[in-house]
Amino acid sequence: MTSVQRAMPWLVAVAALVLAFTAWQAPPAVFTPDREVLFQVSTIDALMIGDYTGSATFATLAESGDFGLGTFDALDGEMVALNGTFWQATADGQVHRADPSMTTPFAVVTWFDSDIVIPYEHSSDLDAIMAATDTRLISENYFYAVAISGTFDFVTVRSFPRQEPPYPPLAEAVANQFTYQDVTGTLVGFRSPAYVTGINVPGYHLHFISDDRTQGGHLLDCRMREGNGALDITPRMTLWLPETVSFIGADLTGDRTQDVAAVERK
Amino acid sequence: MTSVQRAMPWLVAVAALVLAFTAWQAPPAVFTPDREVLFQVSTIDALMIGDYTGSATFATLAESGDFGLGTFDALDGEMVALNGTFWQATADGQVHRADPSMTTPFAVVTWFDSDIVIPYEHSSDLDAIMAATDTRLISENYFYAVAISGTFDFVTVRSFPRQEPPYPPLAEAVANQFTYQDVTGTLVGFRSPAYVTGINVPGYHLHFISDDRTQGGHLLDCRMREGNGALDITPRMTLWLPETVSFIGADLTGDRTQDVAAVERK
Repeated sequence: MTSVQRAMPWLVAVAALVLAFTAWQAPPAVFTPDREVLFQVSTIDALMIGDYTGSATFATLAESGDFGLGTFDALDGEMVALNGTFWQATADGQVHRADPSMTTPFAVVTWFDSDIVIPYEHSSDLDAIMAATDTRLISENYFYAVAISGTFDFVTVRSFPRQEPPYPPLAEAVANQFTYQDVTGTLVGFRSPAYVTGINVPGYHLHFISDDRTQGGHLLDCRMREGNGALDITPRMTLWLPETVSFIGADLTGDRTQDVAAVERK
Repeated sequence: MTSVQRAMPWLVAVAALVLAFTAWQAPPAVFTPDREVLFQVSTIDALMIGDYTGSATFATLAESGDFGLGTFDALDGEMVALNGTFWQATADGQVHRADPSMTTPFAVVTWFDSDIVIPYEHSSDLDAIMAATDTRLISENYFYAVAISGTFDFVTVRSFPRQEPPYPPLAEAVANQFTYQDVTGTLVGFRSPAYVTGINVPGYHLHFISDDRTQGGHLLDCRMREGNGALDITPRMTLWLPETVSFIGADLTGDRTQDVAAVERK
C-alpha cells in the first residue's frame, strides 16, 4: 500500500465533509417576493394630520421594493427610490443616500417591472403627461408604478424641512421649493385608483430625481421636451400600519380629500 | 494495521457523504405566511355595483387565512370561514361546505389568533355587542378579526340567491331573510377602520354560523344571552384585485358609503 493509497480514503472523507458542510451552509431556496404588490407604510391621512413619526426602516422597505416614494422621520425631506437605491432630497436642495437604519412615517414601494412603454415625443406640461399616460392604462382600478425619464425645460419640486414636535398638519408645514432648468431625470411614483382616498393619493403622485442624483423632491410642476415612460401594472396592495403611539392614537375619521389634493399640487 | 483501522477512513467518508446528501435533501426553511394580514379579494364598491364574477378560488383563499367572510360567484349565498373550513349559506336556508374550486368575487380572510378575549355576561342586542367590543380595541386604526361565540335568543341573517347576468347592483338584489330562535353559534367577521371606505366595510361586518353548521348568513340583527368574544389585532391588509373583464371595466368612482351602510344592516 503506497502512502497515496493510504491517504485516499481520508481525502474522500474530507471532501465529503466539505460537501456536507457546504450543503448545510447553503441558504434555503430564496423566497421570491410577490413583485406585483404595492407596499405602503401608513396612510396618507395619517401623514396629513401630522403623524411624522418614522415606523418602518429603509431596510424593511428595501425588502418590499426597489422603486417608489415617501418621506422620512420628522418629515425630513422627500424620498425617491429608483433601481434599488433610496434617495433623500432634503429641504436644503441636497440629495443624499438614505441609510437603511433611517425610518419613514409614509412610503410606497414596489418591485418595478415595465409592462407598458410610452414615448412622449412632444413637449408636454405635467397635465399633458398625465393625460397621455392615462390613455395607456388597462383599467382605472389598478395601481401603476410610473417611471418617466426625460429631458425637462424645467422641473419644480418641493421638500419639507425636518419638523419639530408637536408636529403641524402637512397643510401647515412650510416647504422649500426649487425650480431646475434644462435637467434630465426621472419622474418616479404611482397612479392609484379613486377608491384609495384616505389611504393613498388618488391619481398621480410623483417625485423627481435628476440623472446625476443631485436634484430631487416632490414634483409640483414640469415641462418635458421629450421622454419615455414605463408603467408597472400592480394589481395588489399591502398596507403596513405603524405600531407607534402616534398612529395608534391618530384621529383618522373625516374626509381629507381636498387637503390631499391641495398639498400634492400647490 | 487492523482491518478496522483500514476501514475507518472509508466509514468516515461514507458517513460524511450520507450527511452531505441529507443536508442537500433537506427542505428549505418553510416560509411562514404572515398571519397578521387581512387578505381581501376585490373591493366592497365593486360588489355594490354588481361585479359578482368570481375571481379567486377558495383554494387560493385558504392559502391566505382560516377565518373570514365573503360571497360566491354570482352572489350565490354568504360565506363564513371558521377554523379553516369554508361554509356557504345559500338563500334556501341551507349550509354547505364550499368546494376549493369555487370562486368568490369578494371575500376577506385572515389567520385567526386571539389577542383580546371579551366575556359578554349580560343579554345584549347587536348594538350593545358592538359597543362593548369597541371599548376593548387598542386603536380605531387597525383591522380586527372578530369571533363571538354565544347563545342567542334570536339571530336574523340574510342570504342572496344566485343572480343572473346582467347583474343588478347589490342594493337592488333581493335577499332571503331568516330568523333563528334559541341558537348557539358564532358571529364571524371584522371591524375595519373608517378610512377603508370604498375598499371594505368601515366598522363591523359580521356573518353568522350555528354550532351545528346548519344555519348561517350575513348578520342583520341578534340578541345574545351570553357569549365570549375574541379579537385578532390585524395591522396589515393586502388587497387582491380581480383580473376579470368585469373588474377591469367597473366604474369605481363615486361615493357609495350610504349604500354600503344600508345594505349591511337593512
